[in-house]
Amino acid sequence: QIDSARLWGSIHETAQFGATAKGGVRRLTLSAEDKQVRDWFRKACEEAGLEVYTDALGSQFGLRKGRDMSKLPVGIGSHLDTQPTGGKYDGILGTLGALEVIRTLNDAGIETDAPICVVNWTNEEGSRFAPAMMASAAYVGDFTTDDILSRKDAEGTTVGQALDSIGYRGDKPVGFQKLGCFVELHIEQGPILEAEGKTIGVVDSGQGVLWYDGKISGFESHAGSTPMPLRRDALATLSEIVLAMEAIAKKHGPNAVGTIGEAVIANPSRNVIPGEIAFTMDCRSADGAIMDALDRDLRAAIAEIAARRKVEVKIDLVWRKPPTHFDPKLISAVESAAKTLGYTSRRITSGAGHDACNLNTVMPAAMVFVPCKDGISHNELEDATQGDCAAGTNVLMHTVLAIAGV
Amino acid sequence: QIDSARLWGSIHETAQFGATAKGGVRRLTLSAEDKQVRDWFRKACEEAGLEVYTDALGSQFGLRKGRDMSKLPVGIGSHLDTQPTGGKYDGILGTLGALEVIRTLNDAGIETDAPICVVNWTNEEGSRFAPAMMASAAYVGDFTTDDILSRKDAEGTTVGQALDSIGYRGDKPVGFQKLGCFVELHIEQGPILEAEGKTIGVVDSGQGVLWYDGKISGFESHAGSTPMPLRRDALATLSEIVLAMEAIAKKHGPNAVGTIGEAVIANPSRNVIPGEIAFTMDCRSADGAIMDALDRDLRAAIAEIAARRKVEVKIDLVWRKPPTHFDPKLISAVESAAKTLGYTSRRITSGAGHDACNLNTVMPAAMVFVPCKDGISHNELEDATQGDCAAGTNVLMHTVLAIAGV
Ligand SMILES: NC(=O)NCCC(=O)O
Ligand SMILES: NC(=O)NCCC(=O)O
Repeated sequence: QIDSARLWGSIHETAQFGATAKGGVRRLTLSAEDKQVRDWFRKACEEAGLEVYTDALGSQFGLRKGRDMSKLPVGIGSHLDTQPTGGKYDGILGTLGALEVIRTLNDAGIETDAPICVVNWTNEEGSRFAPAMMASAAYVGDFTTDDILSRKDAEGTTVGQALDSIGYRGDKPVGFQKLGCFVELHIEQGPILEAEGKTIGVVDSGQGVLWYDGKISGFESHAGSTPMPLRRDALATLSEIVLAMEAIAKKHGPNAVGTIGEAVIANPSRNVIPGEIAFTMDCRSADGAIMDALDRDLRAAIAEIAARRKVEVKIDLVWRKPPTHFDPKLISAVESAAKTLGYTSRRITSGAGHDACNLNTVMPAAMVFVPCKDGISHNELEDATQGDCAAGTNVLMHTVLAIAGV
Repeated sequence: QIDSARLWGSIHETAQFGATAKGGVRRLTLSAEDKQVRDWFRKACEEAGLEVYTDALGSQFGLRKGRDMSKLPVGIGSHLDTQPTGGKYDGILGTLGALEVIRTLNDAGIETDAPICVVNWTNEEGSRFAPAMMASAAYVGDFTTDDILSRKDAEGTTVGQALDSIGYRGDKPVGFQKLGCFVELHIEQGPILEAEGKTIGVVDSGQGVLWYDGKISGFESHAGSTPMPLRRDALATLSEIVLAMEAIAKKHGPNAVGTIGEAVIANPSRNVIPGEIAFTMDCRSADGAIMDALDRDLRAAIAEIAARRKVEVKIDLVWRKPPTHFDPKLISAVESAAKTLGYTSRRITSGAGHDACNLNTVMPAAMVFVPCKDGISHNELEDATQGDCAAGTNVLMHTVLAIAGV
């Protein structure tokens, strides 16, 4: 059994790095707050006797030796960055839970056969830089390191510059630390476990993701003197796209969602009809065929709206992540651990993307979910109970022991 | 006849202060670029022999003595500030046209009975600070000077601070310079004169304006894991409001328009459902009863949308300017001047608000319109011909001579 109070203490101690007035955390990747939590995490890993290093994209690795160093390590961990209106648990539970597993094994003097490696992946959230789960995607070879280093945030700062500015461009090449498998603990970020009174979600799959950048070019003109029929209003165009996206996602539901999260009017003014808007779109489904249908329907709807309103709408697909199907043996290992420990559980699909989804493309991977309050995440009010956090960490530890061998 | 080439030269010389790549002007009120054009204007007025001073809200006055100084001056002028995506003519033609009238009278050695006063009103555009036509509104007593001085821009800078930062908080109290009447030359900012091949618009009325500040409070949540039916999406709510406003304006048209020009998502992120949006609304009609109907329909639509989507929408009416009916005698004077000079003309309603609309509430006022290309304004592509600008300035001069007495 892990030390529930110690885990809870770590979560709340690190929540000070970027704490918001509403009780959440704002800790954008590679920001000053992210440096603070990284420093804390590195020190904690070193004090736990791990061999700690950082790769060229800033991901932090902490290796605990095994009896048989010819075996590849069991990877555990998640991320410590948050959304602009983030909570105290998303990613953090999985990273500090991994640390807690190490601390518990140390205290109990338990050696494992295979080594264990805790990881804090850079930019899981994808809020400051696209795509999400950037560093784990590079780790599995979906992008080159140079490509990722050149990605820019809204201010034009590159990942490389941001890494340098907080001193976290590590000396290890991406992929240097080989892993044999990966298990990630996370809050569900949805309402199912809580609604059904289950403690553990045995994650067997994850939704695929489509991310688009969009730009609408209408025509700026005077709000008072331009008759309604002569307008080429970029905001009215966006409004139709938002509602079309909502209708399309509902039509393909319940296994589909669609969101426009960012929309910025260029040079806005009260008495100017908006002429130009940049926006983003996020569409998801656990079913690849539905993802294709979402893409098709969305493009058709946008083309119709643009033609009718005589505006130009450009859509770029900037990221496509197919649905994930986790490793059956690891799924069973998580399920057995939950059963052995006496926790109620159910199989579940992840609505969110996770680093484990990337790692699953090159190695066996699995995930453990615990409930979060009202399914709320990416919100400062995100909440989870100490008991559920401890339960998930126990399941993580017992899964690791089963895989690594004692 | 005024000097068409000199007028055209002044317009293009001052267009360098805030010139944009697309050929427009970005000269927000009380900005560094506004200081440049104000310095230029003050010097030009002084060189034209005017007595120049600035009031407590930064409006610039240049007085040309009359034979009978017991008579109140004839006011002429407009504004030199622009929209963020503004053009070279909106306001500028009326201000530099007034200067050109003075220069022409000087060159011809013409004295008038009543004095003439050229004016550059502060913040006509209303883009940086609300409301539009701020200084002329204070001049006629719609707002106190202190109220206006405390208005803030989006960065929190007050009008008072902005005035001090460019050294244009004048020593004359607002209203110090009494005027007997006011005549403003302006581009039409709409398509009618050009479409009908008329050179001069004799403006007999102006639309009333309703300005609102709005705020939508929904709920931030995860774009991937939040099912469509559980969302309280602030952007989807805004989208319905935008389209409802468009439908309501069309329903009450053609004598009604409605625009949402600004909308800002708080803490935007690609994979977060927008939780909070601040926005503005601008509704207009030349008919007071239609203005009331727009207000009523809009509030009802917003209440229905908010209730159905379980979000909070707050609406504040921050400005209400009733429709303007200009002075019949001055309207006739403008019409006669156009006729005498041999220009085609028609009566017209102003879609935009103007300082003359404010002044009209306490003194006789009127306006002269000239065509602008494709009716485009509040856009960097705003354009007008040298001939039309000169024609409007000639009409302005002859109207002034008729009123002031030679
Ligand atoms: N777990 C999580 O919230 N990941 C962020 C990436 C995404 O799913 O949008
Ligand atoms: N003339 C003009 O564009 N004025 C700006 C104020 C407004 O009508 O919105």
